[in-house]
Amino acid sequence: MTDSILELYVNDGLSDEEIDQQRASYGPLTEDVRELIQLALQTRVDADDVARAREHLAAAREILERDREDGPYGTRFNDSGRFRNWGNAAIGLRNAIAPIGDIHEDDDGRVWADIHLGPVYEGPAGHVHGGVSALLLDQILGDAARISGHPGMTGTLTIRYRKRTPLGALRVEAKLDRVEGRKAFVVGHIADPEGICVKAEGIFIAPAWMVQQRDSFTETPRPE
Amino acid sequence: MTDSILELYVNDGLSDEEIDQQRASYGPLTEDVRELIQLALQTRVDADDVARAREHLAAAREILERDREDGPYGTRFNDSGRFRNWGNAAIGLRNAIAPIGDIHEDDDGRVWADIHLGPVYEGPAGHVHGGVSALLLDQILGDAARISGHPGMTGTLTIRYRKRTPLGALRVEAKLDRVEGRKAFVVGHIADPEGICVKAEGIFIAPAWMVQQRDSFTETPRPE
Repeated sequence: MTDSILELYVNDGLSDEEIDQQRASYGPLTEDVRELIQLALQTRVDADDVARAREHLAAAREILERDREDGPYGTRFNDSGRFRNWGNAAIGLRNAIAPIGDIHEDDDGRVWADIHLGPVYEGPAGHVHGGVSALLLDQILGDAARISGHPGMTGTLTIRYRKRTPLGALRVEAKLDRVEGRKAFVVGHIADPEGICVKAEGIFIAPAWMVQQRDSFTETPRPE
Repeated sequence: MTDSILELYVNDGLSDEEIDQQRASYGPLTEDVRELIQLALQTRVDADDVARAREHLAAAREILERDREDGPYGTRFNDSGRFRNWGNAAIGLRNAIAPIGDIHEDDDGRVWADIHLGPVYEGPAGHVHGGVSALLLDQILGDAARISGHPGMTGTLTIRYRKRTPLGALRVEAKLDRVEGRKAFVVGHIADPEGICVKAEGIFIAPAWMVQQRDSFTETPRPE
């Protein structure tokens, strides 16, 4: 298992300029797809119009499929130390399902993101799916552990839903609480404009191979 | 808050035939978008080809936007008792980010789904995002509570990651463990072909308004 994850940390030899070009090209493509996800849910056009729209989607697919990869994106880096996990389900630049945009890090170790969740993140009618809240928290708590110098894999995640979380504007934040041996305890929450909706505690455990290479996980820039 | 969720339980007066027509039209559209999510991540075509593909996507959007709703889907039903939560982030028919297809219910109350997670559900390189595992479990555990006659909102969800979960074929399952007052305790897990990767316990709490209307939540067919 250790091998399989490290094999996907790949130096793909891209120059900074090439990375910037990919970002400028694939980022907006991903945003287009994000809009289509919402339209597939919200459109009311009739079957004939759906068929016409699908012809255009097929034409787009035909172009994009001409040269494609076939595995997961993994984590890629280049010689100047830029990391990319663009496939990440919570934050990936090229992942249209990812709900989180920019993640901020304060000097005191607090990690936070302001997000806006649309209708495709629904669970209970009109509200955020409890599992989407968990996705947000797993990501932000893990980032807080890493940024505090204690990167690890999620060991246990406990989520307490205090009130229903409305779709719309939310803040997610987390901070390292304490460290016991190889375990980092991180706490965090999701808040709407009225206050905290969901609280979480995560225990992140550093596997031996990660401890050995801890410097490379904490001293590199965070993934872009 | 109670009002806001009940307002989104709407009888939209569709006939069974109209529901079937919508399913036949919007279901495949959603599958097309699902493929595009993956292509936005995996394509290697150059900027000119991306621009050409985006023209087709814009044409599709123009058609689909001609008549669209602007809020969350909510939970809809008709006079013959068919429920739809097609916007649900874990299982919605019209939600291209939803990772779960068919959910099965056994006579003994066990609820399970066989799924296949592709690259867009990645967290650690090559593996399922811990938050996506939480999304799967929150949904299936909640379904197990409801099907056992104890529907509720997620109160607490505790997830223990025993080993990394590979992308690919997985089974998610859950079962009611016990009931204490208004709290239903449900246990479940995610397994790959080698065994259990993630275990979970969820406490689902029935709000007063749901207890009053419990019959309507447990005796209706499950959402389609």
